Amino acid sequence: MDAIDVIRAKRDGGELSPEQIDWAVAAYTRGEIAEEQMSSLAMAILLNGMSRAEVSRWTQAMIDSGERMHWSALDRPTTDKHSTGGVGDKITLPLAPAVAACGAAVPQLSGRGLGHTGGTLDKLESIPGWRASLSTIEMLDVLNSTGAVVCAAGDGLAPADRKLYALRDVTGTVESIPLIASSIMSKKIAEGTGALVLDVKVGSGAFMKTHRDARDLAETMVAIGTDHGVRTIALLTAMDRPLGNAVGNAVEVAESLEVLSGGGPSDVVDLTVALAREMLAAAGLSGAKDPADALRDGSAMDVWRRMITAQGGDPHAPLPVARESYEFTAPFAGVLTRLDAFGVGVAAWRLGAGRARKEDPVSFGAGIICHAKPGDKVAEGAPLLSLYADDVARFPRALEALEGAVEIVEDAVPDPSPLILDRVG
Amino acid sequence: MDAIDVIRAKRDGGELSPEQIDWAVAAYTRGEIAEEQMSSLAMAILLNGMSRAEVSRWTQAMIDSGERMHWSALDRPTTDKHSTGGVGDKITLPLAPAVAACGAAVPQLSGRGLGHTGGTLDKLESIPGWRASLSTIEMLDVLNSTGAVVCAAGDGLAPADRKLYALRDVTGTVESIPLIASSIMSKKIAEGTGALVLDVKVGSGAFMKTHRDARDLAETMVAIGTDHGVRTIALLTAMDRPLGNAVGNAVEVAESLEVLSGGGPSDVVDLTVALAREMLAAAGLSGAKDPADALRDGSAMDVWRRMITAQGGDPHAPLPVARESYEFTAPFAGVLTRLDAFGVGVAAWRLGAGRARKEDPVSFGAGIICHAKPGDKVAEGAPLLSLYADDVARFPRALEALEGAVEIVEDAVPDPSPLILDRVG
Repeated sequence: MDAIDVIRAKRDGGELSPEQIDWAVAAYTRGEIAEEQMSSLAMAILLNGMSRAEVSRWTQAMIDSGERMHWSALDRPTTDKHSTGGVGDKITLPLAPAVAACGAAVPQLSGRGLGHTGGTLDKLESIPGWRASLSTIEMLDVLNSTGAVVCAAGDGLAPADRKLYALRDVTGTVESIPLIASSIMSKKIAEGTGALVLDVKVGSGAFMKTHRDARDLAETMVAIGTDHGVRTIALLTAMDRPLGNAVGNAVEVAESLEVLSGGGPSDVVDLTVALAREMLAAAGLSGAKDPADALRDGSAMDVWRRMITAQGGDPHAPLPVARESYEFTAPFAGVLTRLDAFGVGVAAWRLGAGRARKEDPVSFGAGIICHAKPGDKVAEGAPLLSLYADDVARFPRALEALEGAVEIVEDAVPDPSPLILDRVG
Repeated sequence: MDAIDVIRAKRDGGELSPEQIDWAVAAYTRGEIAEEQMSSLAMAILLNGMSRAEVSRWTQAMIDSGERMHWSALDRPTTDKHSTGGVGDKITLPLAPAVAACGAAVPQLSGRGLGHTGGTLDKLESIPGWRASLSTIEMLDVLNSTGAVVCAAGDGLAPADRKLYALRDVTGTVESIPLIASSIMSKKIAEGTGALVLDVKVGSGAFMKTHRDARDLAETMVAIGTDHGVRTIALLTAMDRPLGNAVGNAVEVAESLEVLSGGGPSDVVDLTVALAREMLAAAGLSGAKDPADALRDGSAMDVWRRMITAQGGDPHAPLPVARESYEFTAPFAGVLTRLDAFGVGVAAWRLGAGRARKEDPVSFGAGIICHAKPGDKVAEGAPLLSLYADDVARFPRALEALEGAVEIVEDAVPDPSPLILDRVG
């Protein structure tokens, strides 16, 4: 087979054959298709799209480029969640233990943050001693003993995806729904979960800015999961404002601990419970314990402590705290009508909570606490946001990112927008 | 400026700004934009097109990547021709001397063949001693002393185009009208000609298979030439059958000598005269000597001999002859209704007249002589094609290429199709 023939077929609006897809992904992984050839193919895919059959096969080929995990040794069904990424999205932290407390196993391979959205592993690494890298045997051990594990994906999982993602990042070919969907789903299917709930974020702080694009991505991913025998559903959830009050690393762990203690911000609790119920239903455990109860009765917190301990972490150790803080106050009284997720995410990133390049470290203590959320009344001079950083030099640029992100209207009528916008699957 | 921003702008259907184009072409030439980035940009250009302003600016940026020649030291106007490439297209050989004999100067930078279409330099190199590489000073000397020069383009001319062409060749991004047009025109404008006639080939043996695509390419090139102050017109000419009877290298030189002697196949003579008249008109020399007379009265032949001699060639030396030949005869009597240019071109290529890779040598003696052309009556057993090669092992695969390329119909009515199909500009 020939790379140029495959490129031309997609360029001219044709459908790639299963053989062409298998060959292209395998040859690219082996280095037989050059980067510049995969780059023009990726652009042709971005502009001409892929059919359901093509995107499913492309995903399969990426899975086949590496190893695939199996959890048949477990005595309970596996179920997982994937979020497309947002600001303040710490949901995995209370969710995985809550679902495990209700009888399912959660084998979650997770990632680090890049840009303005945080990464689950960065958040967990703010817990002293906790380590993200586990072997497959260690994963199975933690799953067996606690019911949930959250760790880093090894290099053996979907190496084609890793290579292709790095290429797309520098060639303007990230924003392709078939390529995004197959990238996410290849890793989740290779992870070996039997059921999967996708949290597709919509809004300024999300990758998908519009409901339509988010729904398109959700439908594509649900189709891929279904084609691969993984029971998959997707929720579209709001990411126009941050999720919860805390945005950062240790501050999000702290907020998660509130939720695991039966408290915490209502949006975080509501989304955790909604996703947990979907995960359990997809795993065939609808009649089991309700995850809202698991958060209230301490059983989720028990799983959390065992899970953190099993990965070397000390669940009772104090969390890192940033050296410096800055209070952002309300200039006048009114209703907070806008707290833009993107602005807050960029500000937290600039405070040190995120990284600009993969190899950068993150500050565990840096971040933002939102003292009010859209729809809340605020008094003149009341604290709106607390900014945390290890160096005061970081505050000016973080505050720049917040310009236009906060809006207070004197006589506005609070009109809370819904958190869960749609469901696919 | 950032490569990804430029790629995204074109990918999303926008128009690139002059600054973006200038930067992208210059940065790519310097190696600051990576091959995989230019590759996705080329695919986005191929699929989303370019406006007239964009393609003119892109051409300018490619010209500006290297040197630009000037012929103001000459005492006569410059005019040139470019053909998009065909089978048996030896027109430059009689054309350049004929136009020079009528008072214009022809500074033609030409190329070598690749694939089934021949290259003018390969044909001329079959003349013993003739050399294609001249310095700019030598070019000026030959132009001054003979009125015409045909030589290879130096490395300093449009280096961005050379780099981009090599990339497009392996990334499925050759077939883009703005990229083809800017590639051709950047070299022709950098060559410094004041007027330019484009011979855009249409049909099976040409790059453009349809009249519509050929006209689109012609219009784009005429627009670019006009925007750069070069008086440019284009003829669309038939390439469904070979041009003339000879296809190869030395065999085409021999046929050109017949034309320069006042004879030769009528289609070669007609196209030479038509293009020569357009070149002279574009150079403001309409009232000068008619090129048909220059072919008949020996003045074009005089220029030819001086031109070949000035570049080290011996115009009287015997031309190379292939060691082996094969006669392809008519299986029954009738009218030759089809002699497919592509089939004949591929056959000549396989006989050794062309090359598969840039670094391959060509056989000067190899090629094909067509004893009949579409519309001619043929007798049973009459020779249709003579095949020439240096090795008999080359005949079987050449004959394979001719399968389906030749059609004889017993009682067909000869219906000669026109040679010149359209004119643009």
